[in-house]
Amino acid sequence: LCLLDPSRAEVFASTFGRLAPDLPFRCFRSEDPARVRYIITRVPAPALAQLYTNVDAIFSVMAGADALINAELPQRIALVRMVEPGLIGMMRDYAVMATLALHRELPHFLARQRERCWAPISPVPASERRVGVLGLGVLGTTVIDALRPFGFQLAGWSRSKKDIINVPCYEGADGLRVVAARSDILVCLLPLTPETHRILGADLFRCMPPGGRLVQVGRGPQLDECALLAALDSGHLRAAVIDVVEPEPLPREHPLWLHPGVILTPHIASQTRGETAAAAVIDNIRRVQSNVAPIGLVDRQCGY
Amino acid sequence: LCLLDPSRAEVFASTFGRLAPDLPFRCFRSEDPARVRYIITRVPAPALAQLYTNVDAIFSVMAGADALINAELPQRIALVRMVEPGLIGMMRDYAVMATLALHRELPHFLARQRERCWAPISPVPASERRVGVLGLGVLGTTVIDALRPFGFQLAGWSRSKKDIINVPCYEGADGLRVVAARSDILVCLLPLTPETHRILGADLFRCMPPGGRLVQVGRGPQLDECALLAALDSGHLRAAVIDVVEPEPLPREHPLWLHPGVILTPHIASQTRGETAAAAVIDNIRRVQSNVAPIGLVDRQCGY
Repeated sequence: LCLLDPSRAEVFASTFGRLAPDLPFRCFRSEDPARVRYIITRVPAPALAQLYTNVDAIFSVMAGADALINAELPQRIALVRMVEPGLIGMMRDYAVMATLALHRELPHFLARQRERCWAPISPVPASERRVGVLGLGVLGTTVIDALRPFGFQLAGWSRSKKDIINVPCYEGADGLRVVAARSDILVCLLPLTPETHRILGADLFRCMPPGGRLVQVGRGPQLDECALLAALDSGHLRAAVIDVVEPEPLPREHPLWLHPGVILTPHIASQTRGETAAAAVIDNIRRVQSNVAPIGLVDRQCGY
Repeated sequence: LCLLDPSRAEVFASTFGRLAPDLPFRCFRSEDPARVRYIITRVPAPALAQLYTNVDAIFSVMAGADALINAELPQRIALVRMVEPGLIGMMRDYAVMATLALHRELPHFLARQRERCWAPISPVPASERRVGVLGLGVLGTTVIDALRPFGFQLAGWSRSKKDIINVPCYEGADGLRVVAARSDILVCLLPLTPETHRILGADLFRCMPPGGRLVQVGRGPQLDECALLAALDSGHLRAAVIDVVEPEPLPREHPLWLHPGVILTPHIASQTRGETAAAAVIDNIRRVQSNVAPIGLVDRQCGY
């Protein structure tokens, strides 16, 4: 059963028809709710479990697990977030663009451009720029690999210990302060959990070196926008590229919109691609049918 | 003899003192002009040859050969442009940033941000984006290699035939039209020669597909700014990232400054780094002393 918006549902229907004609595919409703085994949705409603009593798994098209967990569905239903190559590649493109833009002072030059002011400043080589990536799942490690060829001084941080070749990795609350203190540019790719709520706040910014910069491509509630604006206005932080905020859309009167140190995009860093996402769901249904754990299976305890 | 500005001359003096104490190094003037064999400068004055009668080679700190050639110095003096890793890496960083920014619609989102308008548009995967690189010297090939991991559909163009693994390369006037016609994003890294003067003009833009985008990191006189503005205003081209213009600084009243489709930076894509540039000149003096052609030796006939 597919509960996506019509244009996306159409892509899923045609991909299922092509790749998995044996799987009965329904959109929006089923004549016989008790026969629905798998649901594809964006954000699941808690009531789904009452209506569709025999659901085995719910597949979200979102990369984040938070909306799946917040629906508080029965434990017997497997929750599966989206892991697909289109989404990963788009996040890589955006995160590298944002990191290079902060590395090369693009917010400064954009502000000068609006003043019609020709104000060159000498570039710094990437080898003298320290970049810290927060979150070392498939997205974080992909971004680290994409940043390697530029020669940045890279580091990583995650909740639990990770090993990445040639990149020092830190963990836990102490490790977060260490990474922040050595990062000219911090890139947040963390999942939203109770521990990462407002993690990008005054405490973290204070740990960063003067002139630090932030790329926020995680989830909106992780960022304390007021603390960011205060850090920018004090001159401690220099610039930020922000793709996710809370709430979305950002209210028109919010000062983040027009801050000269901020590049703000409307949650477009990464979006699930219909074709590859449908193929990923089909692959995951085959896995569930074969009693293999689906890719992107959510651990309700960890929160991702 | 070093004719650079004082801050840069100081870096050269200390690097020469450290790496080549045997080479007598003078700044700004020499007590005995007839003893000067090598001159380090930015843009050479034509009169240099009259004053320094025994000069063997003039080393410029600029990557472009045009200023060296335009000085019309005697043929016996070798003209050497700057080829050094710092400059190459900075050009790579900027060109990848600009290409990703156009790929991910950054000019559109910046214009919406100024209007405080949350207007997402779905991203296109890099694999569906065709990028053409004009100029296949050390900078062009480095940029192509840096763009490869993103999965863009790459192509190259240069005056004479070049072979690059897995990238179709074209040459000559016909080839230029072919590359333009298949490029959603064109990246210009050409040297300035009589043939490339105003090469980025109405004819080339007409060859590009609707919605085409331009990165200009070559030399100012290559771009016909009026033709670019006309192509943007007609909707045929979508956006551009421009680092070099003519004249520089761009006059305050020029419409390029405030065009919503244009990101304009003040000729900062790549700058020679003092330390690595001085080391490159020392290496080249050793080559000349050993009768080996210096790296970056200018061919006055080709114009680069």
